[in-house]
Amino acid sequence: MDHLLAAVDLGSNSFRLSIGRVVQQDDIAHIYAVDRLKESVQLAAGLGPDDILDDASIARAITVLRRYGERLKGFHPDRVRAVATSTFRVAKNVNVLLPLAEEALGFPIEVIAGQEEARLIFSGVANELPPSQNRRLVIDIGGGSTEFIIGCGFEPMQLSSLLMGCVSYTQRFFPDGKITADRMDRAQLAARRELETISRKFRKAGWQEAYGSSGTAKALFAVLTDANMSRQGITLEGLEKLRAKLVSDGKVLVDQLPGLKASRANVLAGGLAIMLAAFHELKIESMWSGEGALRVGVLYDLLGRESAHDKRDETSKQFMRRYHVDTAQASRVRQAALKLFEPLAVDPQQKEDLQKSLGWAAELHEIGFSITADHYHRHSAYILEHADMPGFSNDEQAALSWLVLGHLGKLGKLKSRKPSRNQWAALLCLRLAVLLMRRRESLQRLPLRIELDDNSLRIITNKVWMANHSLTAYSLENEVTEWVKTGFNVVLE
Amino acid sequence: MDHLLAAVDLGSNSFRLSIGRVVQQDDIAHIYAVDRLKESVQLAAGLGPDDILDDASIARAITVLRRYGERLKGFHPDRVRAVATSTFRVAKNVNVLLPLAEEALGFPIEVIAGQEEARLIFSGVANELPPSQNRRLVIDIGGGSTEFIIGCGFEPMQLSSLLMGCVSYTQRFFPDGKITADRMDRAQLAARRELETISRKFRKAGWQEAYGSSGTAKALFAVLTDANMSRQGITLEGLEKLRAKLVSDGKVLVDQLPGLKASRANVLAGGLAIMLAAFHELKIESMWSGEGALRVGVLYDLLGRESAHDKRDETSKQFMRRYHVDTAQASRVRQAALKLFEPLAVDPQQKEDLQKSLGWAAELHEIGFSITADHYHRHSAYILEHADMPGFSNDEQAALSWLVLGHLGKLGKLKSRKPSRNQWAALLCLRLAVLLMRRRESLQRLPLRIELDDNSLRIITNKVWMANHSLTAYSLENEVTEWVKTGFNVVLE
Repeated sequence: MDHLLAAVDLGSNSFRLSIGRVVQQDDIAHIYAVDRLKESVQLAAGLGPDDILDDASIARAITVLRRYGERLKGFHPDRVRAVATSTFRVAKNVNVLLPLAEEALGFPIEVIAGQEEARLIFSGVANELPPSQNRRLVIDIGGGSTEFIIGCGFEPMQLSSLLMGCVSYTQRFFPDGKITADRMDRAQLAARRELETISRKFRKAGWQEAYGSSGTAKALFAVLTDANMSRQGITLEGLEKLRAKLVSDGKVLVDQLPGLKASRANVLAGGLAIMLAAFHELKIESMWSGEGALRVGVLYDLLGRESAHDKRDETSKQFMRRYHVDTAQASRVRQAALKLFEPLAVDPQQKEDLQKSLGWAAELHEIGFSITADHYHRHSAYILEHADMPGFSNDEQAALSWLVLGHLGKLGKLKSRKPSRNQWAALLCLRLAVLLMRRRESLQRLPLRIELDDNSLRIITNKVWMANHSLTAYSLENEVTEWVKTGFNVVLE
Repeated sequence: MDHLLAAVDLGSNSFRLSIGRVVQQDDIAHIYAVDRLKESVQLAAGLGPDDILDDASIARAITVLRRYGERLKGFHPDRVRAVATSTFRVAKNVNVLLPLAEEALGFPIEVIAGQEEARLIFSGVANELPPSQNRRLVIDIGGGSTEFIIGCGFEPMQLSSLLMGCVSYTQRFFPDGKITADRMDRAQLAARRELETISRKFRKAGWQEAYGSSGTAKALFAVLTDANMSRQGITLEGLEKLRAKLVSDGKVLVDQLPGLKASRANVLAGGLAIMLAAFHELKIESMWSGEGALRVGVLYDLLGRESAHDKRDETSKQFMRRYHVDTAQASRVRQAALKLFEPLAVDPQQKEDLQKSLGWAAELHEIGFSITADHYHRHSAYILEHADMPGFSNDEQAALSWLVLGHLGKLGKLKSRKPSRNQWAALLCLRLAVLLMRRRESLQRLPLRIELDDNSLRIITNKVWMANHSLTAYSLENEVTEWVKTGFNVVLE
């Protein structure tokens, strides 16, 4: 059955809304665009030297999001995914911006890491290009970051996100719009310096086709082609001609550059410098413009979540392997935690999300052993907070990290994240599961269950079993005492 | 040639000084004790509920250390190693205690982690026991922590340090010295709960011989044997008899327990509870008293460092494998960093230490890539700060972590550790080496060298080379600007 999915991309230069229709063909689902909106918000331009986003930019963002929110009215939350990228990652006042933005849009917004952005971009481009066995290089010059990916088919093989974008570079090197050879040199050098760390790896991996997937690439492609500066897509020769023209004009003259949109003119210089640096460092011969990018990748990811191919499950399994997790123990804890959580009276939408988190937390709670056994829960939480976890947003990683940090030990510090009643309940389930499985042996049946009402959690134990397991009984008493610190009432019956 | 080595063990119950004579026999070096001092300081008893060590305990520690310092006068610093364990790990005012203690002793004191303590204990016991192919379990009940090790020959296979000791448990469960069945039960339960996390792993590994290496084990062995409570070393039956006697007496009656030293009497109850818990959880049948322990392990480790078998080099190599480091790059950076550092005018003793640190830092600076490429230097530093690194003290790990944190990016935050001029110089060498090797290609010769005088560092570059390598030249300019934040003057010539 056909249905609609929506992706919102809160980029540092433009915001985009894509609505796609899902069509099943021969067991494969495709997404066809039914609606696309794009607005040049130039959010990155509002970032001060202190990384605080100014009020004017916030206001611009909110206006656009309110408009998108109207278009999305009536969409089920499961079918909308909004992702925010580098400016949201960098802005120190994201705590102010994010709630306002979510309120205007009417849907949650996920801030995603650079690597995750790169993964989604490649998925988007790969899904829009004809199938091929060729290795493809994709470069996405955004407003605040640039993503580089090499992949084959739908599989990314190299992913990288560098902190340079057409908006931030134009601001930094061409603040008044004036373009000189020296300024161009400095901008290109700075970009090459960023690229230096990845160029060898990327050149070694190699590719047969190169694509530029962002507005910058599209604009350069249009300008170079329309002005006859280059014949085969974007070439180094063409880029150098454009550079020479901009330097000799001293600025971007929109009316002399056929194919250039006015909204792109004031970020062209920074974008060109980054593209030139990429061509030099990676020794790219020619590049084509690729459609799709982030918003399409987000749509296909949404589709995967619906059809039980959740990238996040895959990532969790992969982490268990990478960090040599005792999988038998992870699965014992997972089963017990989910069994305890299952009967709780929690709103169904939230419940599904919490069950997923709880499952991953159980699978990954021991990864910190790879660093050391002392306080391993802190190291597990550290890794989950910082690692690249394909499919997870920053916020999902933070939530997972919180659960894992709290699975053992003191609870006082857990309060700072201001968890909801249901999140506390999920944490208790995880703690009890870990406590019951400390011996790393399966239990035939759980000797306790929990009940949740408005303000308290009751742990109801099997008295006969407890009498014969004084160690567990002792641990449970300590557990209840520990919960006093949270302000959340846990009683033992 | 024979010579003397000295180890100081600042335990939570006792302080010990051991002086050993090194004797070469058939290419193997042995250490024979020539002098041993022991003082019951009961440092852990001075830890308040807020983990602040009280003044009286500090004074007791200083008095003993001053005495040891006199005995050690004239020893070369390379031949003395002083290690401090759990109370030093836990005490929040260790910053006050440590400088006082070092001043009294006249030698630096290293606070070591639990795992490192366990490793050294096993080495000490293994070196004092007759050679055997048997798997050996060693339990060392200290004042504040208890170490458990299984190993074969000189190789530890399982290492664990749990936060429970004879002093801390006696204080917690028998604060007024009164012994009841209920108090014993609670102390044993708490100890078993700690043991629960390791018991399965240890039982699975298995052993043929069990040794208790601490004062607690020695005291229990003496009491059980002399009072005829047990025949074959320490047994569960014997421990239960002793427990029954203590409970029925209501306290430790020194005159009724032949073999018990008065200084041991007031920490016997806590030690007994831990030993009983270990026997129950690990299902130990009988245990013998093992000599040696930490102080002997420290002596053999010192010997290794002298004879170019530095455990720390081995650990660094092992970490490179574990975290899949690009070893070619690590070795390029190492060579360049050491080459830059070599000619600097630095006091020889410090120079050797800094060269070692610099070498390890170069080998390990990229381990954080295992978490993510974004800010990988922070993750490398995190791992080095927290991981178990056999052979390294906490302070050495902190110094290594500092170098690695500073090898890239901003320098402002590096100041908080108040590094010396020479440490800044070592850091600059590492940073320059990383900068020069960014392309991951070997250089025939380094295009720069550095000179260090009292208050500044000069980077002297090869002008011809720089003119042809604008990217490196640009990076060097940025580097010099970055150093302004440190207050340490770096100039480019």
